Amino acid sequence: MSRLWNRRVASLDPYVPGEQPAALDLLKLNTNELPYGPSPKALAAIRAACDDTLRLYPDPTSMALRQAIAARFDTTADRVFVGNGSDEVLAHAFRGLVRDDAPLLFADVSYGFYPVYCGLFDQPYREIPLRSDFSIDVDDYTGTCGGIAIANPNANTGIALPAEDIERLAVAQPDSTIIVDEAYVDFGAQSAVSLTHRHDNILVVQTVSKSRALAGLRVGYAIGHPDLIEGLTRVKDSFNSYPLDRLAQIGAAAALEDTTWLNEATGRVIETRAQLAASLNDRGFHVLPSCANFILVQHPTHRATDIQQHLRDRHIIVRRLSHPRIQNWLRISIGTNQDSGRLLSALDDFRTF
Amino acid sequence: MSRLWNRRVASLDPYVPGEQPAALDLLKLNTNELPYGPSPKALAAIRAACDDTLRLYPDPTSMALRQAIAARFDTTADRVFVGNGSDEVLAHAFRGLVRDDAPLLFADVSYGFYPVYCGLFDQPYREIPLRSDFSIDVDDYTGTCGGIAIANPNANTGIALPAEDIERLAVAQPDSTIIVDEAYVDFGAQSAVSLTHRHDNILVVQTVSKSRALAGLRVGYAIGHPDLIEGLTRVKDSFNSYPLDRLAQIGAAAALEDTTWLNEATGRVIETRAQLAASLNDRGFHVLPSCANFILVQHPTHRATDIQQHLRDRHIIVRRLSHPRIQNWLRISIGTNQDSGRLLSALDDFRTF
Repeated sequence: MSRLWNRRVASLDPYVPGEQPAALDLLKLNTNELPYGPSPKALAAIRAACDDTLRLYPDPTSMALRQAIAARFDTTADRVFVGNGSDEVLAHAFRGLVRDDAPLLFADVSYGFYPVYCGLFDQPYREIPLRSDFSIDVDDYTGTCGGIAIANPNANTGIALPAEDIERLAVAQPDSTIIVDEAYVDFGAQSAVSLTHRHDNILVVQTVSKSRALAGLRVGYAIGHPDLIEGLTRVKDSFNSYPLDRLAQIGAAAALEDTTWLNEATGRVIETRAQLAASLNDRGFHVLPSCANFILVQHPTHRATDIQQHLRDRHIIVRRLSHPRIQNWLRISIGTNQDSGRLLSALDDFRTF
Repeated sequence: MSRLWNRRVASLDPYVPGEQPAALDLLKLNTNELPYGPSPKALAAIRAACDDTLRLYPDPTSMALRQAIAARFDTTADRVFVGNGSDEVLAHAFRGLVRDDAPLLFADVSYGFYPVYCGLFDQPYREIPLRSDFSIDVDDYTGTCGGIAIANPNANTGIALPAEDIERLAVAQPDSTIIVDEAYVDFGAQSAVSLTHRHDNILVVQTVSKSRALAGLRVGYAIGHPDLIEGLTRVKDSFNSYPLDRLAQIGAAAALEDTTWLNEATGRVIETRAQLAASLNDRGFHVLPSCANFILVQHPTHRATDIQQHLRDRHIIVRRLSHPRIQNWLRISIGTNQDSGRLLSALDDFRTF
């Protein structure tokens, strides 16, 4: 605390990301990174761009990248916004596309950054409890609201919502922006991108951090009606004209174009996920049905903290979230089949499950 | 305008950066980029880091970069904050280190982003007129205020303020954060970094965009008392955990370490600036005394718009700012000596000055 902080800073409850330990011998299954390196075409594009032109500012409109995203989703660049990771895109959406005279609605168990943005922006919010099976019932999102944020698949649970549910919500709340956070969508869920052409209040947010294996590059994007994109752009241009550096713009564009790579990488993750879930079921774990590149698991008798510590002693890091409803669960990122093998033998080593 | 924008977005008056035209045959003297490429060590470090580790999130604390900055300024990493360009660092400072129950003070002619941040954050502000010679009188910054932002050298004018004036201000306003925006300091002004050890209310903000020739990489930083750094960190962690990608962190650290390169590059700019100012004086221009990598110039009889258009017709872009006090002036970035020659002969071609 300092006399020079304003009243807001003192009351903030900042987001705590999963740790990024420097040690390289660790098996990191805590922050949902892909186990495979990114598209070689993306790396080649970045290397080729790493020259004296770095003395110049990037294109503040990121037009080439937005065109690459538009091409991938069969739409136009005026329906695409880009930012410094989907976190920044979400922050701008919370700042600009949500009315602050009514609560923003989101699930009680979801991406932990949502309430944090609200703290920064003095935005009222209301958490809507998930059903007891951790699924979302969109019919619970009723009443006057400033906007709605839905992670699909949901953060931390991995459970997906059908696109028709998103559409029903958009129709039921026509004067609210429905922010659909699709960070994990490429691992088996239905995207709402095509709905954005029919419903001007749906904003879909995606990232290259997960399915494109470019968490280190910090690029996220949003797709929606040009009015929503213009609103986001106004916020961005009142905050930072150039949020994406030259290398990030070029690398992300090349990654977006490499659909073959995407399909292969996500296919492998989906396969590994199914095998790991089955193996954990065999060992008595309860595994939530996941459409993301992680699974949320619980053991009926062993405490999550004990299992987590046991794994950490064997240099395997998994994540435990602090929300009361899932604090006895562990979130495990999907790695390679070999990573699964290392995880399973470390677990077998724990006790007889 | 859209029903889905909140009231704030509609009233924003976003910052308009200098254009980044795609055509390569243009002589860009409009956005104060260095005419020389960055340190080859920075480029080599980025290329070496461009590999499969991009699948991993960057270090959210940017510790290695902060340590490189600390080493350069003979201080410690807990006194260093980094962000996505100095624009983001300034935005966080405006959001977190300025009280919003009193006006933030800054010069009427200064960096055009200051009032824009205030619009985004509902921050009251008061513009303090520069003297008639465009210099800052720190004794004008009196009375209750939420904080003070001083660009030194001043944006758009290039005029520098002695460090002792910054110190006098810090003493006169002990309960306000003095944000010293030193984007251009390496081109001949006195930095206030050493003052941050004596005055806990001085926050110095710098960037690698100008003197380090890395505008394309988007890295800025702040140096000040650990309490100020902690306040900024709280805001950052409530907005975006990972604002700096892996390549930007590594490239900026390598650039910061290359002092030899810095001294050579800034030395050349300073020399070219002196020669260009003298040549423009010879042609009757009024040239403000600049400690930045640009000069603000006015001709006693020819209108700035006419000169700007004439130059543009010859593929030379210079900047005209919209503020009434300088709207008949042109801001010209310092290029190479050859760039100066091209500019001068285009001007000679205009009319007989």
